[in-house]
Amino acid sequence: MPNTYNPVTPELVTLLMDIAGKGNVFTDAEKLEAYSHDETDASVYGHNPEAVVLPQTTEQVARIVSLANQEKIPITPRGAGSGLSGGAIPEYGGIVISLEKMNRLLELDKANMVAVVEAGMVTNDLANAVQAEGLFFAGYPMSLQTCVIGGNIAENAGGGKAVKYGVTGRYIIGLELVTPQGEIVQLGGKLVKDVTGYDLKSLVIGSEGTLGIVTKAIVKLIGYPSSKGDLLVLFKTPKDAIDLVPVILSKGLTPTSIEFMDQLSIITSCAYLNESLPYENAGAMLLIEMDGGGASQLETELIEIGKLCEANGAIEVYVAEDRNNIERIWNVRRNIAEAFKVFSPAQSLEDIVVPSSRIPEMIPELERLGKKYQIRIPCYGHAGDGNLHATLVKDPAMPLDVWKRNEDLCLKELYQITGKFGGKISGEHGIGIKRRDYLKELIDPVELGLMRAIKNAWDPNNIMNPGKIFL
Amino acid sequence: MPNTYNPVTPELVTLLMDIAGKGNVFTDAEKLEAYSHDETDASVYGHNPEAVVLPQTTEQVARIVSLANQEKIPITPRGAGSGLSGGAIPEYGGIVISLEKMNRLLELDKANMVAVVEAGMVTNDLANAVQAEGLFFAGYPMSLQTCVIGGNIAENAGGGKAVKYGVTGRYIIGLELVTPQGEIVQLGGKLVKDVTGYDLKSLVIGSEGTLGIVTKAIVKLIGYPSSKGDLLVLFKTPKDAIDLVPVILSKGLTPTSIEFMDQLSIITSCAYLNESLPYENAGAMLLIEMDGGGASQLETELIEIGKLCEANGAIEVYVAEDRNNIERIWNVRRNIAEAFKVFSPAQSLEDIVVPSSRIPEMIPELERLGKKYQIRIPCYGHAGDGNLHATLVKDPAMPLDVWKRNEDLCLKELYQITGKFGGKISGEHGIGIKRRDYLKELIDPVELGLMRAIKNAWDPNNIMNPGKIFL
Repeated sequence: MPNTYNPVTPELVTLLMDIAGKGNVFTDAEKLEAYSHDETDASVYGHNPEAVVLPQTTEQVARIVSLANQEKIPITPRGAGSGLSGGAIPEYGGIVISLEKMNRLLELDKANMVAVVEAGMVTNDLANAVQAEGLFFAGYPMSLQTCVIGGNIAENAGGGKAVKYGVTGRYIIGLELVTPQGEIVQLGGKLVKDVTGYDLKSLVIGSEGTLGIVTKAIVKLIGYPSSKGDLLVLFKTPKDAIDLVPVILSKGLTPTSIEFMDQLSIITSCAYLNESLPYENAGAMLLIEMDGGGASQLETELIEIGKLCEANGAIEVYVAEDRNNIERIWNVRRNIAEAFKVFSPAQSLEDIVVPSSRIPEMIPELERLGKKYQIRIPCYGHAGDGNLHATLVKDPAMPLDVWKRNEDLCLKELYQITGKFGGKISGEHGIGIKRRDYLKELIDPVELGLMRAIKNAWDPNNIMNPGKIFL
Repeated sequence: MPNTYNPVTPELVTLLMDIAGKGNVFTDAEKLEAYSHDETDASVYGHNPEAVVLPQTTEQVARIVSLANQEKIPITPRGAGSGLSGGAIPEYGGIVISLEKMNRLLELDKANMVAVVEAGMVTNDLANAVQAEGLFFAGYPMSLQTCVIGGNIAENAGGGKAVKYGVTGRYIIGLELVTPQGEIVQLGGKLVKDVTGYDLKSLVIGSEGTLGIVTKAIVKLIGYPSSKGDLLVLFKTPKDAIDLVPVILSKGLTPTSIEFMDQLSIITSCAYLNESLPYENAGAMLLIEMDGGGASQLETELIEIGKLCEANGAIEVYVAEDRNNIERIWNVRRNIAEAFKVFSPAQSLEDIVVPSSRIPEMIPELERLGKKYQIRIPCYGHAGDGNLHATLVKDPAMPLDVWKRNEDLCLKELYQITGKFGGKISGEHGIGIKRRDYLKELIDPVELGLMRAIKNAWDPNNIMNPGKIFL
């Protein structure tokens, strides 16, 4: 349980202004509200901080954290607020430290193929900056146009290219951390291998801001892929589409992406974007991208995948030739989560991950759960990783109290099924506030004990993003 | 500092026999000696245990650790004993738990491209078993014919294919751990992404057996590369060879390996193997391997690298066409460490890693240090990773006390230079006993404090491989 915290007093606000500058500390209602939520349902999870600070340097972050630790005031680090598990919500009030003003590309070291960035840099800005130099940042969260590197690190974000390139953590070879005691430490370096003591960097990645505030990152880049190709494959049913995923992967082919979208996901995103795709009436789609390896090799492999699809129940295989059209399709894919949010704020965007051979078994289970709890469960996601964004969406006609009860029961059952298939409840969105009670029921108490032991040892006053992952 | 430990009493030996079977517990002098050292100089680092146990199941490991924790007896986990930093040496006596009888491939899950193995399985046995099914384990420590997966995990081993494929940790997606309290916990799973709580798996990888005993691993496999090609490139001087490494890498080419060998390394290994290479009189060599991407793409890239070499000071570029010949050259490369050990047990095999753009600056520094301290410092290693095995070798004529003083001074200076270049003192061999005093001088005390906090929290009695990494 979090400790009892002290309030942010007017004296403390003055001290914060001394540290970060008067114009970078806010206590007015409008600002507090703006920093009270992320992309989860604010009516359920939102909570105002007592103050918001926008530091401009790591030293300022360290001084603020040190002060908060001394005064026992909770700190909530915040990137873009685009998180999907409540990780940036100041549930216990206190101070939100937003990294939005620390958004610079500090160094592009072409010789070592490395970028050094501040944690508040928008992911897409980094991708574009390095692409201009022929280099490639392989992280690709669907929110890349708004999310920031620090948030990607906090959640170890996955995204659309993880089948081939892996998740964010693979590319973070160094980071600067402000510890919960307000000390600054550099972990890792411009090094592709390093066993000089414990791998604290990897522990911090994905720890949802509970072990400190990442202020800088050293990002490993690779050569920009020389070629790229996409297939859009249409199916009658979601099951037909999903069944194909292990078929492709077990052939040793490594697409960059195998994205899955069911009909409701496609239609909802198209409606939200006022976009019209000629094939939105298909029961489900796979969007398959490949890159690298030379144009002719790529074409051979795309044809191989296309043939596999045709031989295994695809209605139609489109080779997307025109980059504009491809970008339109990807835009539909990227906006599904936002579209459902607009359609119904009362919803639960899930993030289960199972061994890729087991995902065909998930689709019938989702259909069964939908019927049992009278909840529509559209589904999309990174099928190539076994990571499905099943989304529980409230029917407008269902009373709120019934929805809440059914949602809870449905989630519990969904998570149990996921566990039974050898899966976990979050592949890339994190536990945050949203899933901590479920995690507690599902996780081995020994594993939870080992996590808590680290948290207690690093943050004895429990000031650093308290209540995330576990209470 | 390690606590005061209790001795292994005859009563305790009886209990160990009850757990692991009478024939799997040893206290005789010959066995104790056999388990007293690894590949570091036994006369400097060796220390006998009081008992050696060979458990056959995870449950046995857990019971032994639980008992040791209760009785405050140090435990030293051991794989193949092929380590190069003293990580498997029972410096405080107590019990060595050798995983040698837990060496089975438990499952080869082709659908998920995953192998489940016991920690004592020889790395090469795993590689061969999966290759028979068209799959590829990308770990390739130079000692792969003897080392075991558990040891690879404990040190987060790198090796010969890390330029393209990364180090061991990238392929370990799950593991079974016996904690220092003797509890069994499963971390990760057959999942390629997972942010369900802290990434304890990555913390354990590379922690040198100080945070528990890994008993099983879930290993991610990839498709076996369809094609492979090698270049052997000869140079007049080590500097000429090393200078080429960042030239190749910064072109966006990703060889599997860029291995560097200076003349003394080649000659010593050839003499040890009674092998004769026609080009062993070159001042230095690069052994460059590429794989995958289709045969024609591969050939194009090999030619491109060959031309880069010729344009930048290579004397000769051999395209190694014949797999037998290639294996002979790799065999010379793999046996350098062993050859130097036979030539002079009084030596220090180093493992520094620097940003790849800085490795050209290391060669002149090594030459300068060699002259200053009258020590021959042959050098070889994974140049493509910035990871160099500079080896301080005692001249037979130098008195032992002079050698020891000079070795110490030389190492201190080498490590300081490495740090100045943005590097670290170990890329893949670990800190163990050998480097802990140097680490203490070099590491940021904040970082060391964070490591110690984890160790203390997980292992309050400090029974699990005490004295490794830090005292």
